[in-house]
Amino acid sequence: MRAVVYKAPFQVAVEDVPDPRIEHPSDVVVKITSTAICGSDLHMYEGRTAAEAGIVFGHENLGIVQEAGTAVTSIRPGDRVVMPFNVACGFCKNCIAGYTGFCLTVNPGFAGGAYGYVAMGPFRGGQAEYLRVPYADFNCERLPAGTEHETDFVLLADIFPTGYHGCEMAQVAPGETVAVYGAGPVGLMAAYSARLRGASRIFVVDRIADRLRKAEEIGAIPINFEDRDPVAQIKELTNGEGADKGVDAVGYQARAHEGEREEPAIVLNALIQTVRATGALGVPGLYVPADPGAPDEQARRGVLGVAVGRLFEKGLRVGTGQCNVKRYIRFLKELIIAGRAAPSFVVSHELPLEAAPDAYEKFDKRIDGYTKVVLHPHGG
Amino acid sequence: MRAVVYKAPFQVAVEDVPDPRIEHPSDVVVKITSTAICGSDLHMYEGRTAAEAGIVFGHENLGIVQEAGTAVTSIRPGDRVVMPFNVACGFCKNCIAGYTGFCLTVNPGFAGGAYGYVAMGPFRGGQAEYLRVPYADFNCERLPAGTEHETDFVLLADIFPTGYHGCEMAQVAPGETVAVYGAGPVGLMAAYSARLRGASRIFVVDRIADRLRKAEEIGAIPINFEDRDPVAQIKELTNGEGADKGVDAVGYQARAHEGEREEPAIVLNALIQTVRATGALGVPGLYVPADPGAPDEQARRGVLGVAVGRLFEKGLRVGTGQCNVKRYIRFLKELIIAGRAAPSFVVSHELPLEAAPDAYEKFDKRIDGYTKVVLHPHGG
Amino acid sequence: MRAVVYKAPFQVAVEDVPDPRIEHPSDVVVKITSTAICGSDLHMYEGRTAAEAGIVFGHENLGIVQEAGTAVTSIRPGDRVVMPFNVACGFCKNCIAGYTGFCLTVNPGFAGGAYGYVAMGPFRGGQAEYLRVPYADFNCERLPAGTEHETDFVLLADIFPTGYHGCEMAQVAPGETVAVYGAGPVGLMAAYSARLRGASRIFVVDRIADRLRKAEEIGAIPINFEDRDPVAQIKELTNGEGADKGVDAVGYQARAHEGEREEPAIVLNALIQTVRATGALGVPGLYVPADPGAPDEQARRGVLGVAVGRLFEKGLRVGTGQCNVKRYIRFLKELIIAGRAAPSFVVSHELPLEAAPDAYEKFDKRIDGYTKVVLHPHGG
Amino acid sequence: MRAVVYKAPFQVAVEDVPDPRIEHPSDVVVKITSTAICGSDLHMYEGRTAAEAGIVFGHENLGIVQEAGTAVTSIRPGDRVVMPFNVACGFCKNCIAGYTGFCLTVNPGFAGGAYGYVAMGPFRGGQAEYLRVPYADFNCERLPAGTEHETDFVLLADIFPTGYHGCEMAQVAPGETVAVYGAGPVGLMAAYSARLRGASRIFVVDRIADRLRKAEEIGAIPINFEDRDPVAQIKELTNGEGADKGVDAVGYQARAHEGEREEPAIVLNALIQTVRATGALGVPGLYVPADPGAPDEQARRGVLGVAVGRLFEKGLRVGTGQCNVKRYIRFLKELIIAGRAAPSFVVSHELPLEAAPDAYEKFDKRIDGYTKVVLHPHGG
Repeated sequence: MRAVVYKAPFQVAVEDVPDPRIEHPSDVVVKITSTAICGSDLHMYEGRTAAEAGIVFGHENLGIVQEAGTAVTSIRPGDRVVMPFNVACGFCKNCIAGYTGFCLTVNPGFAGGAYGYVAMGPFRGGQAEYLRVPYADFNCERLPAGTEHETDFVLLADIFPTGYHGCEMAQVAPGETVAVYGAGPVGLMAAYSARLRGASRIFVVDRIADRLRKAEEIGAIPINFEDRDPVAQIKELTNGEGADKGVDAVGYQARAHEGEREEPAIVLNALIQTVRATGALGVPGLYVPADPGAPDEQARRGVLGVAVGRLFEKGLRVGTGQCNVKRYIRFLKELIIAGRAAPSFVVSHELPLEAAPDAYEKFDKRIDGYTKVVLHPHGG
Repeated sequence: MRAVVYKAPFQVAVEDVPDPRIEHPSDVVVKITSTAICGSDLHMYEGRTAAEAGIVFGHENLGIVQEAGTAVTSIRPGDRVVMPFNVACGFCKNCIAGYTGFCLTVNPGFAGGAYGYVAMGPFRGGQAEYLRVPYADFNCERLPAGTEHETDFVLLADIFPTGYHGCEMAQVAPGETVAVYGAGPVGLMAAYSARLRGASRIFVVDRIADRLRKAEEIGAIPINFEDRDPVAQIKELTNGEGADKGVDAVGYQARAHEGEREEPAIVLNALIQTVRATGALGVPGLYVPADPGAPDEQARRGVLGVAVGRLFEKGLRVGTGQCNVKRYIRFLKELIIAGRAAPSFVVSHELPLEAAPDAYEKFDKRIDGYTKVVLHPHGG
Repeated sequence: MRAVVYKAPFQVAVEDVPDPRIEHPSDVVVKITSTAICGSDLHMYEGRTAAEAGIVFGHENLGIVQEAGTAVTSIRPGDRVVMPFNVACGFCKNCIAGYTGFCLTVNPGFAGGAYGYVAMGPFRGGQAEYLRVPYADFNCERLPAGTEHETDFVLLADIFPTGYHGCEMAQVAPGETVAVYGAGPVGLMAAYSARLRGASRIFVVDRIADRLRKAEEIGAIPINFEDRDPVAQIKELTNGEGADKGVDAVGYQARAHEGEREEPAIVLNALIQTVRATGALGVPGLYVPADPGAPDEQARRGVLGVAVGRLFEKGLRVGTGQCNVKRYIRFLKELIIAGRAAPSFVVSHELPLEAAPDAYEKFDKRIDGYTKVVLHPHGG
Repeated sequence: MRAVVYKAPFQVAVEDVPDPRIEHPSDVVVKITSTAICGSDLHMYEGRTAAEAGIVFGHENLGIVQEAGTAVTSIRPGDRVVMPFNVACGFCKNCIAGYTGFCLTVNPGFAGGAYGYVAMGPFRGGQAEYLRVPYADFNCERLPAGTEHETDFVLLADIFPTGYHGCEMAQVAPGETVAVYGAGPVGLMAAYSARLRGASRIFVVDRIADRLRKAEEIGAIPINFEDRDPVAQIKELTNGEGADKGVDAVGYQARAHEGEREEPAIVLNALIQTVRATGALGVPGLYVPADPGAPDEQARRGVLGVAVGRLFEKGLRVGTGQCNVKRYIRFLKELIIAGRAAPSFVVSHELPLEAAPDAYEKFDKRIDGYTKVVLHPHGG
């Protein structure tokens, strides 16, 4: 079959690879109809991880079940399904507790597995014609038959739940004000989720006009951090108090201004200033324990200078870590079906699989309006 | 009346000061029968804060109501009461939400007030014969008449709830393993609270034999960090997994070894290593946004090097900040009355008020077994 | 001053009564600008309670502070305020725990107080020119100056929080389906709140076309129980499963059909059938321990035939009781100010105080479109 | 193999039945070393259900894995395991949400399955030499090798979690007072769990001296309801307030006095009186929607006269339904391993399988001290 294969930094190719097959009685093979490129794929693409040539990318996958192992009971060939990006067993103590992003079974020696991602286990990605899905009863979320909401549904694999997770970690509650740093796809999903949870006002901080416009379109208040200190702007809009809650949808590759060197803790520290005493921060934005491209020696080991004194003085709570998609996927799906959520407004391009190399390049450069790309390996 | 007055670094005196009086219809004046010296008093005592000469110390206070303002309805002269160390109004949005440690009313321009503490508002401390208590209906916790449980009850003002708060922030649940760093009074109270909440095994990390012995006496497992890396010790005892939850009862004045220079983030970073993925940390130990005595320039501004990459990878949650005593005081009191909790095992000395200067000196030097001192200004 | 006084069953009058005054240093007197008539006022109006002649009605009150006692610190004359219908002290153990509807201080011998309501303590109602408010720092919710949102804000005193409370007790979560029985003002507020909380689909059950139309206007699915068994209708719309959660906004004066005799448990039992296994019911609709007008002897003592066997088999949870308004009022106010909630769509009439007798009569008969009346004692 | 087979009301026999075998790749077969007789088995034994002759009883099962299907990944032959009494798939929406007692997969047309129980699906019971366990990765809880804690561990299958579930549904919190009605095995486990959760005082209501003595031995306060109205007794011991929380560990076969006719709602209504306003009730005691032996026509349909008026006035919450064992089993196991819980104090007899008929008879008659029987089909 055809698949998007990582070749070298800034280089992917669509190549022939062996077809996946049932390897365990609990597996299914899914014919992929939609698969999205994620901002986190770019970390590998840019050579800023330990990813080696040969990896098939793709952890945001949706398709039709092609074949099912003998132990699979709830999923049948022909079912339309979307897969959480986390591969999880469903029965280890972390899965049982709802922490499916930290499964202890699927990726021995580590807590958590994923499709097509460096260090996340032996699972090929879904930017391909077909995908093997282990523990299929647990890892497939069944969708209504047909093709309706295809582009909304594929976002259930990662970014819609991940944005929601930011709000959950920040414990966003009705009537609250929320500051979201970053208006990329995850930041927009966080703002959108804050609205679904009943936030009163949502501030979205970025510097790119297009992104801020999208934020405004979904009812958020855009804050351009290049205009003026975003902390000051948000305090002014909240009678000097700051926001009740905050979400970091940027992560470690942050910088104060375009073209300047990275300051990996700048968003975290801005949030500590932005959020009022007694508040909470949700951090779905990625931080890593080893970053060869970091601006200083401490940061290379993932150690960042954090305003702990102020954090403590304000009594803030902080939630971190990748999303446990399984925890949110079912009810977010229900909101899409009921017409109450339509996250596909963030998708800028829908393309055939063969367009992947070009799409990666443009998305990485943030040119030609590439903000979120969905690939359709079988057309459509 | 007589009161403990701060004179200069490493110097307090018991002096005559004006008697407190009813200043507002909601005030009461309490005749102090028991008042404890807190580890946090030592920050001021050592001149490591902005505290100026003249402050009357004392935020752990218990006594008999002497006089009540005209608006007070639930408290009468003669009632035995203990006062949470936080001064709080009971009606601002933070108090309503249970964050009485971050009251917006009592200390204008800041979230939170306390008795006898630098920067925590205009409230004299209770290491004195009498104490004025504002918003008395809210700030007095009524106790059974008499003198029973006096030494247990005075610990309800701060350290018993503060230890419990560490477990609450770490979301300690039945059957879990918990690592508590620090076996001072707050650390011991955290370990004791973990037990009350049904933890299965509690590891208490310190280097002082006496403290570790106390930890063992209440059913915890002592871990001497000078013997060997405490992270390694705890991992060994948990099949390599680490503890489910962790509590930092040390704060910013931490060091790796006696006599070495402080490493303000060493305990935080040890906890990030100690606690397993999906876990949570409670941080009742104090961190400050400005520390003139810090070992480096960043730390002087309260900015510490934290292993954010690992924190995120493990998906840990962190709760910080001083205790909202009001949230816990009533039910901890019920446990004392019912005979299910007796926190006074941490008290090493009960002394008259006039002994305060000597007690401060010995407690600060950790000599002669001074671990927790309760003063009785009116004898007893 | 002028006030609405209960005279006899089905008879109220607007009469002169003594002006209220500061009786305690914590009191304020409020000049009432808006005060609503509540469905629960009709229980007294119809003579179906122990209410005696002379009671001044009115527990949904908003106005301008006229005078403040010497202990009041956060409220000043001239402030616009709305008062939760529950009178509460703010410092008893129930208030501290957030159960301000069950205050142990203000109505000795009973848990809970209210303005202008039989058995709820010595507090005159606010369908009058002025109102005394005790424990004013706690019982007044400050509003932005001016008259904006006046009709939305007055609903913060009771029915908006009470509807929300129904959803809170039912633990309505994003993506869930919710069945609300009763499309009166509280039922509509419950449906509206379910939407704010992110419910996917909301079924509203009633028989009156106007009410069902309002439900539809706010995005709910109307279910006319006179057309066909509402349980069957809702099951059909949910693949045979039933709704995830349910709210009883009817209470004990329920009947299967207009003109038939009351069946006090009919709504509770319908909800037990309507909600799927593992679900939850919120019951803000009133049930009483003594009802002289009940259809049978058991019901006169508040004992009703409930399908406990089915309830248990389905593992349902049930939350009951009057709303603790203080718990919700601040954040619902923020939603109104931010333009995200506008509950006044339920208000059918705004009238001068003198129109009260006529309004009571028409509201009680549900004629001329009287569904929710707001009185303005000082014009406007 | 040998198994306990239901023959007719008041008659079971130990007979030869076919050996169980792997029927699905996710199954295991377990050699049963310990299996307990449950009070709920007696409902079938007494002919008070629709159970037909031929059922193999036994839902509290522990043993050694004998054989595993090809899809099983975490469990191996030789592992010691205990099985929650609920059979659950682990991937339906109820299982995912933690409601494994209401699995939608294993017992089509109904929410919930169990071993050896009428209407709970096609699963043979474990009062036998061997047991087939479906979805074994999910339904087996691994235990330390060997035989240590065998009698404690077998109680993890049902009654220890079920007692704990009563406290969870009642939201028992540290420092609270709790009233448990019923001092049978589940009631004792509820009282024991209340203690583990930090309750201050626990009242256990029963009439049998032996049971009340056991309650006292674990630190509870015995209340003999034949001495005097238990509500009055508990109110006296709580300053007239009543208990904070309540647990119904009796269910529908309650009666006011030995020898009198059953009053199925008497315990529920006593709890409504016993628990103070704002409290909560947990109801693990069984109520059924169809009871041929009920004392009146309504009760035959599971409709009971409940004091709804008082329930509402007090604002009580109620949680009902069978335990989701999976939710609690892991951490209760940890407490046993750590030596912090030893629930086997309720076990009165350990017997060979062949003793089952005699044990059923004596347990049903509550004679010779039969309170909780554990059978050992393979000796030991």
